[in-house]
Amino acid sequence: MEVTLKTEVEAGASGFSVTGGGNEGIFIKKVLKESPASKIFSLREGDQLLSATIFFDNIKYEDALKILQYSEPYRVQFSLKRKIAGKEELEHIHSTAHYKKERINYRSRIKSQSCVRVEKHSLASQHFLLLLSIH
Amino acid sequence: MEVTLKTEVEAGASGFSVTGGGNEGIFIKKVLKESPASKIFSLREGDQLLSATIFFDNIKYEDALKILQYSEPYRVQFSLKRKIAGKEELEHIHSTAHYKKERINYRSRIKSQSCVRVEKHSLASQHFLLLLSIH
Repeated sequence: MEVTLKTEVEAGASGFSVTGGGNEGIFIKKVLKESPASKIFSLREGDQLLSATIFFDNIKYEDALKILQYSEPYRVQFSLKRKIAGKEELEHIHSTAHYKKERINYRSRIKSQSCVRVEKHSLASQHFLLLLSIH
Repeated sequence: MEVTLKTEVEAGASGFSVTGGGNEGIFIKKVLKESPASKIFSLREGDQLLSATIFFDNIKYEDALKILQYSEPYRVQFSLKRKIAGKEELEHIHSTAHYKKERINYRSRIKSQSCVRVEKHSLASQHFLLLLSIH
């Protein structure tokens, strides 16, 4: 039996080594007892690492750059915050975005009529973005 | 107005530079027109990168290692696949895991009685893991 797990969002994932690579996948090779990898992240030898999400709050410029450079050839997903001018720009994003219906109530923010128009448009356009929230 | 967005999961995020760092945050400095960063990831100058999720399928060992090393001091979350022996081990994971009730129906997999016991136990224990799926 196999399970898919997500670890706690925490800083300082130290105390483990990996093996594998290529189409074999990346696996946890060794976990030091009493290390954050063991105690906080609950990693175990033999676990396959499917993905890592790195949060960029308080990250050094140089470290962010290296992470982005090393991950460039591979599949990535960014979470980003964008300042927008107002309704028109929101509609533009909306027209190229998926969005989570359960988390955003557009009808309270955009007039009902324009909302319908934008939703129609979004079906025909490419879906680059997933709109998570409006502040 | 600010929006939080997630980009498409895609390979080859090239054609952009970043600036900032530390508690200021990491921002997109320049996006090359016609680049994947612009056309596939829809990045824009001024966007704040909150996080990057790197998927480890088909990744070179050396690149995975570098990404893990550079991200070690920062907040990270791993998605992982674990082979488990059977019901006892599933219960152990369950006892240290959050889980998404809407995605997993435990009662169909574990006897009703033991399930209740495990759920009680999970309230008292630390929550390292989020159990996403059972295969």
